[in-house]
Amino acid sequence: MTDFTATRALFHLPDGICYLDGNSLGPLPKAAEARMREAITSEWGEMLITAWNRAGWMDLPRKVGDRVGRLIGAAPGTVVMGDTLSIKVFQALSAALQLVPDRKVVLSDSGNFPTDLYMAQGLIGALGQGYELRVVAPDEVEAALTDEVAVMMLTQVDYRTGRMHDMAHLTRAAQAKGIAVVWDLAHSAGAVPVDMAGSNAEFAVGCTYKYLNGGPGAPAFIYARPDISERVAPILSGWLGHEAPFAFDPDYRPGMGIDRMRVGTPPVLQLAALDAALDAWDGVDMADLRTRSVALCERFIAGVEASCPDLTLVSPRDAAQRGSQVSFAFENGYAAMQALIADGVIGDFRAPDVMRFGFTPLYTSDADVDHAVEVLARILRDRLWDKPEYHQRAAVT
Amino acid sequence: MTDFTATRALFHLPDGICYLDGNSLGPLPKAAEARMREAITSEWGEMLITAWNRAGWMDLPRKVGDRVGRLIGAAPGTVVMGDTLSIKVFQALSAALQLVPDRKVVLSDSGNFPTDLYMAQGLIGALGQGYELRVVAPDEVEAALTDEVAVMMLTQVDYRTGRMHDMAHLTRAAQAKGIAVVWDLAHSAGAVPVDMAGSNAEFAVGCTYKYLNGGPGAPAFIYARPDISERVAPILSGWLGHEAPFAFDPDYRPGMGIDRMRVGTPPVLQLAALDAALDAWDGVDMADLRTRSVALCERFIAGVEASCPDLTLVSPRDAAQRGSQVSFAFENGYAAMQALIADGVIGDFRAPDVMRFGFTPLYTSDADVDHAVEVLARILRDRLWDKPEYHQRAAVT
Repeated sequence: MTDFTATRALFHLPDGICYLDGNSLGPLPKAAEARMREAITSEWGEMLITAWNRAGWMDLPRKVGDRVGRLIGAAPGTVVMGDTLSIKVFQALSAALQLVPDRKVVLSDSGNFPTDLYMAQGLIGALGQGYELRVVAPDEVEAALTDEVAVMMLTQVDYRTGRMHDMAHLTRAAQAKGIAVVWDLAHSAGAVPVDMAGSNAEFAVGCTYKYLNGGPGAPAFIYARPDISERVAPILSGWLGHEAPFAFDPDYRPGMGIDRMRVGTPPVLQLAALDAALDAWDGVDMADLRTRSVALCERFIAGVEASCPDLTLVSPRDAAQRGSQVSFAFENGYAAMQALIADGVIGDFRAPDVMRFGFTPLYTSDADVDHAVEVLARILRDRLWDKPEYHQRAAVT
Repeated sequence: MTDFTATRALFHLPDGICYLDGNSLGPLPKAAEARMREAITSEWGEMLITAWNRAGWMDLPRKVGDRVGRLIGAAPGTVVMGDTLSIKVFQALSAALQLVPDRKVVLSDSGNFPTDLYMAQGLIGALGQGYELRVVAPDEVEAALTDEVAVMMLTQVDYRTGRMHDMAHLTRAAQAKGIAVVWDLAHSAGAVPVDMAGSNAEFAVGCTYKYLNGGPGAPAFIYARPDISERVAPILSGWLGHEAPFAFDPDYRPGMGIDRMRVGTPPVLQLAALDAALDAWDGVDMADLRTRSVALCERFIAGVEASCPDLTLVSPRDAAQRGSQVSFAFENGYAAMQALIADGVIGDFRAPDVMRFGFTPLYTSDADVDHAVEVLARILRDRLWDKPEYHQRAAVT
């Protein structure tokens, strides 16, 4: 059994804070502090330019990619790090469309994170030629898998509600219709067991600052199924995706395998932080993680439903259909979340009325859950959210 | 007069190292160490998700963009940070093409850094419809400005030779033919005075890990002339370029002004390092910088030509046509550079035979120049480069 008391000790958790927002930004792993000091002082400071070789900076996107790969069931050499999730969505979608050149429809759902839809809109606008983004409700995706559809692009776990698609089932259903598949694992990687290789999906993308605790602005990842990575021509054909970046050829020649999904100079400092953050996953069994995640979520749901009658569960009640977060709707949800934060319980809010709580077994304890329920119940019972300052919207909510 | 002895003291320069590769990776500014510690420990560690507002993370791309803008003659609010230079080239080129919709030719030159050409190739491949990348020799650009050309996309200072285009002149010549202009300032920003606003060019892009000392993988910048930034539809339409990112609209609506060139979640840790690195520029007069840069380069050229007859100057002899680097060709240049590095003098090598030396007034002294000349002369005179280990190519050269 994975020892989650031991993993909790690997994180810096501020005094007096009950942190249930690791699905937005994971907390600071203690190892990241030390690793960053080394990257800055010993590598950048002392080795200077030679650190690209001597400290292995150039290989970090692949090395860290393999570590992320292990957590999503991807074979070594099939995942690479870089850029942001938005950019990786653009790359994956553009590549997936090349696999089905005779069709023009990208199918997604209204539970997708907006940036995925926005990036698809930008790509489709550039491609012209009748390409179309078709967005249906999450439970209508399967019925919408027609032979017009080129690519099914979905986020597995809904950022608002935590509703989780059945990746294996939908992938099979799509591929049976000749449709290529792109999964966004932003709320899956490190949150639930993922079996990329077993799913047979063509592409996956995700970010690493949520459940993987890589720090603010940590780089994204992209996975390509090994048999198709060399069948696609990268649209973002940057020099580090070139077969021989330091040959400085005037013409782009795509690199081997997943390397062609690299673009520009990698963010070494962010990668160093992420690399250290991934140490916390050494020895973590993803089945154990899932068991703990479900237990934490169920405990929270039971507690809130027993003591907060004004809140309505918007996450699926069936744990099998839920990621590692729980969301409740409440018309004064924004103000109630501000009141909670003011009292040291940090979740977050998603428009129009969703109070969102992330449960992250690496460092969330039963006591955290019970404390959060108690504070939330008090805020609702005593209408503590009804103060003017809690209704002022900040830039980032 | 700018005090360059004072600015040198702001950097960590390793003992026994003479660093002439700041045109590839600037050294560690002492302020960056402290700022990173704060960003990691106090902001990420203690404020967690609330740091997006409380520590101003969400505004960093604009705030740091304004600081970079000052160094390239751009007005506040016209520069934003993010991603890599490759991505910013893609954005700028795609936007510039929209300004001249009836033409299909992108003109560049063979002195451009390969990734700029690669990204143009990727974009043009996606656009189809007869778009063409036309690459001419650097001294043939002006003659190639025909009424077929939609966009002139050039790197001002050649990464191999240091040859510098006349930005104002070429921009005028291009615009007189109805051509939109994209300048890559990778080897200009912090190296030579740049007057973006005065040039009237539509777009500029650049990186910040060279002369701006932002650290390995520091984010890139993009400038758009204020009157045209809202005339273009971003192809990389990410959520942070949306008019209201936290409204989570299903449809992309571009943000105001340069904000629409933001894409995904910004790399906060890299931005913190860069922000601190920019402190070194407070009070630096760019005319003083240029005077010192020319003096350092001339001193190096004179010294090498007097003592290293085997080397051939490939940089322009006229300082007015040269950036802040000096390159010499030598058939055993790779091995000679390895021998130099082994002796503590760090420059770099660019295929096929170019030994490249960057001169960065903020921390390069006359004594550094004289020492580099002396070591180089000894290596050549005594053929110290002719050892097997100096001929083994590393991954990054």
